[in-house]
Amino acid sequence: MTDLELKRITEGILPADAAAVSAAEMRQASLAKPPRSLGRLEDISVRLAGVTGNVRNKMDKRLVAVFSADNGVALDGVAVTPQSVTKKQSVNMMRRKTGMSVLAECYGDDVRVYDVGINADADYPGIINRKVRFGTASILTGPAMTRGEALAAIEAGFDAAKSVKAEGYDVIGIGEMGIGNTTTSAAVLSVLTGAAPAAVTGRGSGLSDEALAHKREVVARAVELNAPDPKDPVGVIASVGGLDIAAMTGAFLGAAYYRLPAVVDGLISITAALAATRLTPAVRDYLFLSHVSEEPGYLIAKNELGLDPMLTLDMRLGEGSGCPLAFQIMRGACAVMNCMAAFGEAEIDDGYLKKLENVKDFNYKK
Amino acid sequence: MTDLELKRITEGILPADAAAVSAAEMRQASLAKPPRSLGRLEDISVRLAGVTGNVRNKMDKRLVAVFSADNGVALDGVAVTPQSVTKKQSVNMMRRKTGMSVLAECYGDDVRVYDVGINADADYPGIINRKVRFGTASILTGPAMTRGEALAAIEAGFDAAKSVKAEGYDVIGIGEMGIGNTTTSAAVLSVLTGAAPAAVTGRGSGLSDEALAHKREVVARAVELNAPDPKDPVGVIASVGGLDIAAMTGAFLGAAYYRLPAVVDGLISITAALAATRLTPAVRDYLFLSHVSEEPGYLIAKNELGLDPMLTLDMRLGEGSGCPLAFQIMRGACAVMNCMAAFGEAEIDDGYLKKLENVKDFNYKK
Repeated sequence: MTDLELKRITEGILPADAAAVSAAEMRQASLAKPPRSLGRLEDISVRLAGVTGNVRNKMDKRLVAVFSADNGVALDGVAVTPQSVTKKQSVNMMRRKTGMSVLAECYGDDVRVYDVGINADADYPGIINRKVRFGTASILTGPAMTRGEALAAIEAGFDAAKSVKAEGYDVIGIGEMGIGNTTTSAAVLSVLTGAAPAAVTGRGSGLSDEALAHKREVVARAVELNAPDPKDPVGVIASVGGLDIAAMTGAFLGAAYYRLPAVVDGLISITAALAATRLTPAVRDYLFLSHVSEEPGYLIAKNELGLDPMLTLDMRLGEGSGCPLAFQIMRGACAVMNCMAAFGEAEIDDGYLKKLENVKDFNYKK
Repeated sequence: MTDLELKRITEGILPADAAAVSAAEMRQASLAKPPRSLGRLEDISVRLAGVTGNVRNKMDKRLVAVFSADNGVALDGVAVTPQSVTKKQSVNMMRRKTGMSVLAECYGDDVRVYDVGINADADYPGIINRKVRFGTASILTGPAMTRGEALAAIEAGFDAAKSVKAEGYDVIGIGEMGIGNTTTSAAVLSVLTGAAPAAVTGRGSGLSDEALAHKREVVARAVELNAPDPKDPVGVIASVGGLDIAAMTGAFLGAAYYRLPAVVDGLISITAALAATRLTPAVRDYLFLSHVSEEPGYLIAKNELGLDPMLTLDMRLGEGSGCPLAFQIMRGACAVMNCMAAFGEAEIDDGYLKKLENVKDFNYKK
């Protein structure tokens, strides 16, 4: 993918269907319940209408797409975990043995793992080979990768979303596996949002106080050394990000381009989602935030996006583990929109309806 | 049910199985993930072990039990909704047309409605007749009901939980339908917790500012007039509560007695759950809070219980509508406990495991 091709894609991403949103709001208002009494379920159902153009939607066919890649910075003492775990856990996902994949199995979701840069051969049934290179360079010594490599990873993610849509899925969840990627995400977030490196850097898989201080220093030095232009998200990802983040950014772009609801997982996922909205703001209309990650950068990214997560479960595993849970909430939101009785059908007194019409807090957060 | 029989039941409710909790904590610690990285899912799976005595649990057969009753105070200007809606929505629940029941249908949960005091004949297929009386008296003019009537409703709820357990359900969600019951719940909560009536009284289905001020006045006057003994939960419910709250209290007692996980819905449900814990504190070990209700009394009750809800979805519908959503989160928690690879099985380096063992934040909130 070239910069020009990327530009054509971002120009092809349209905002939510306003007519469908209005129709969905009208139907929500007609349902036999106090206005807003189903809270975020109502918001989700209305936003889904904006994505698909239909008031009624379904969440029957669901997939978590995982982008796996190694990050050179993992060797600089920012992770408790050896790099070899990126490949091992990618394999374990296909074995349905990791946190995300047992949740997906439990709810009947499909899982697909894309190798976009694992630092080892990762041949395993179900792992899709879109490897751009064997891991990135350390962002402490220069850029993680070339701009062309970042674009190739974005293309891999875009293609993934395109296939998922073509196969008839109703929703895509976007996750990752990549030791060191809370560090690269912190660096990308710091550049994109202007937040201080310390504010966006957390303990990842469980760093000590000392190791956290070192990680913050690494993020600050990487940002200073590479000094990417915040207005060029591809350049930011190429210099201080990773192949996982690049591919996820492409997947969010692809979901928006093909009008597929895209579920955001934790810190790395929301970093990629934010990068995609910086390429074109309309991507935001296709994003559904699953859970509040415990990583500190998450809240900064969420506030930038102006979207609220569905779940507060104190999770910080990554992998896409919030997506299967969010899919179930979204299923419920669709059931409310599709199946609840409207006031007429519920045979409830007009007086009830009239009084409810006078309630003033009927505003959808969008 | 007599007071003596109730005493025998509360004495028969045992705390969580400490050995099973320990074994479940050990298994969680052995799973191939950073400690605590699945947050509340881990807590839920450990608490479920305490309920059933088994480390591995399932959530395959799920039921929402709804207790419907009318409240005399509804006629005193505290509700936007006519009393007839209690029966109509109870029927609509069996037609799978209400908010709770479409969610239950969507996820494959069963629904059972118990008429414990609807102020009308409520013969409809699936509505179970355990009517104690045709609605209560207004708590503004005296007690809602006699102590004997409160005990009869508690017995109806207890019997419901007993049947649900006997039929092999893995979990029970406890909901309600009863116009006026946010007012009675506020009164009960105020007495049980000592909180000011204004602090526990909210807008219910959508009161105006003026109507809210009136509702707060009603709660305060009812509490003052009836002046129940806070140390006698049955007396509190009989004087300022309702048949719905009484039956739900009985259902929570029954779930705890028969070691069935019990999911708490919104304000009315948590009021009954709190009343049950005041009869015997061990009930707490069987409670799973679904979502943060928007009603202000909810947070006060939640803090008294010292438990955290799973979901923050800005919901305030009642009916038990949070239960089907919570059931799905609990399914996921079971999948993590039952199916994730332990470190050995995941073939992840010992170095990873050893480093993780040094992370100090490994404390289950119980």
